[in-house]
Amino acid sequence: MKSFGRIVVCGVGLIGGSFALALKARGLVREVVGLGRRMSTLEEAKSLGVIDTIATGWAEALEGAELVLLAMPVGQMDETMRAMAPHLAPGTLVTDAGSTKRDVIEGIYAHLSEHVANVVPAHPIAGAEKSGPSAARAELCAGRKVVLTPLPENDADAIERVREAWLATGGVLYEMSPAEHDRVFATVSHLPHLLAYALVHDVAQRENAGQLFGYAASGFRDFTRIASSHPEMWRDICVANRHALLGELDAYLAELAGIKALLEEGDGPALESLFKEARDKRDAWLAGQYNI
Amino acid sequence: MKSFGRIVVCGVGLIGGSFALALKARGLVREVVGLGRRMSTLEEAKSLGVIDTIATGWAEALEGAELVLLAMPVGQMDETMRAMAPHLAPGTLVTDAGSTKRDVIEGIYAHLSEHVANVVPAHPIAGAEKSGPSAARAELCAGRKVVLTPLPENDADAIERVREAWLATGGVLYEMSPAEHDRVFATVSHLPHLLAYALVHDVAQRENAGQLFGYAASGFRDFTRIASSHPEMWRDICVANRHALLGELDAYLAELAGIKALLEEGDGPALESLFKEARDKRDAWLAGQYNI
Repeated sequence: MKSFGRIVVCGVGLIGGSFALALKARGLVREVVGLGRRMSTLEEAKSLGVIDTIATGWAEALEGAELVLLAMPVGQMDETMRAMAPHLAPGTLVTDAGSTKRDVIEGIYAHLSEHVANVVPAHPIAGAEKSGPSAARAELCAGRKVVLTPLPENDADAIERVREAWLATGGVLYEMSPAEHDRVFATVSHLPHLLAYALVHDVAQRENAGQLFGYAASGFRDFTRIASSHPEMWRDICVANRHALLGELDAYLAELAGIKALLEEGDGPALESLFKEARDKRDAWLAGQYNI
Repeated sequence: MKSFGRIVVCGVGLIGGSFALALKARGLVREVVGLGRRMSTLEEAKSLGVIDTIATGWAEALEGAELVLLAMPVGQMDETMRAMAPHLAPGTLVTDAGSTKRDVIEGIYAHLSEHVANVVPAHPIAGAEKSGPSAARAELCAGRKVVLTPLPENDADAIERVREAWLATGGVLYEMSPAEHDRVFATVSHLPHLLAYALVHDVAQRENAGQLFGYAASGFRDFTRIASSHPEMWRDICVANRHALLGELDAYLAELAGIKALLEEGDGPALESLFKEARDKRDAWLAGQYNI
């Protein structure tokens, strides 16, 4: 694989930092330039060896860069693309790691329309409840799915080169349309995050919250692990994908209404059958029966 | 600690089996007699060294026993106590491992009223999504909370001896009233199980369930871990504790209604603040700030 020379990572946290470390580990970059909102985070990333150089502006960062990764919370994508656009050279490739795709793509058409041939959206399915450069590691994406949502205007060579970069992280590449992507992840990722935050928030409001947390055990811990996720990142995802997410929330509320009726009737057999179906499907999933 | 001589474990799965293994590991039993619905499970438990002897009836099992542990799903407690009552000697101690306490105690008063001085209800907070004797291990309860809900009629010596048995599992003992127990665990255990089963069931019903499971990742996996729990056990818990659980479900539905309104308004700051409060409270919990 050909080296990427100089790359720019905007947002040097878990995802951006891990992308940089993976390409470094494979010797595929000469220099990683970091850009971001907080100098303290950039300095931490530099001291950890995640990035080589701190840029204080886009003009400086993009000088001679072959590839840019946008890895901030999706709420910052629009403003970031607006700011980078005037400084982007015609041949520089751009990809992103946004957890939602339709809103990011709206930003691409709004601000990078002259560069759209070289802007290939992506989403690595490699979250963690930890964030920041100290959580980054070269193997974060190894064996994980990375979804590309190429645009009709994308140049074939640009897609190929961006694929190479994501393959270098160890990711397993898939392609979907942006709308399909946002619907699927509303179901399997965004909704569970919302539900986990909701449960912890519900418990934390109680007068006897101390007692309740005191008796919470491993089931509660695992169910709510994703409620320790980055609040700003998840705010942005929920707002960006709120239409699909509201649809998912309604489907889930209908499911809970059905279960509530079974509880009110004390219908043990129907509850057991529902639990058994869920258990069997989950176990089949864990056994790899739903690999796509 | 004085040995318990012969003990009877009714239900030789994860909890009953682990209790037996713990007492054996500490040399506190001479013989563990197993009793249960399925001969195949009892034979498996015996071949694994979890129990020493298989009993085919209560008369045989209780002969010279000092302590009985009832460790079946709570839906079987009533019938089990009815069946054991005629064969229970005046001095034999009884405890249980039921996940709900009010219904078990109703069974005690209904069937074991002559023995109530020696029947001390308990609940080890040591679940797992695995079940059966092969999942049992001596250290399952080590460092875990074990809640005792002693009855007013309990003999002080009986409480002390049952405490010793649970302490021998490595459990950390707490006491609560049965009603308080059932309310607290409705919140921190029963509701999350219901919510996890509901999400997997919801996803499994979809036309594109294969695709959805295919893209589900570690967040979904941990959130739904408890949906791989024993369906019959959780049917029994939900039915037995349905009044407290319905109250919890309503509180959660109110929480979701609030979040739904924030999503509809696209209110990012309020969502972020809610997520942040949840994250901070959960992190404080993990840091041990809610130890009781």
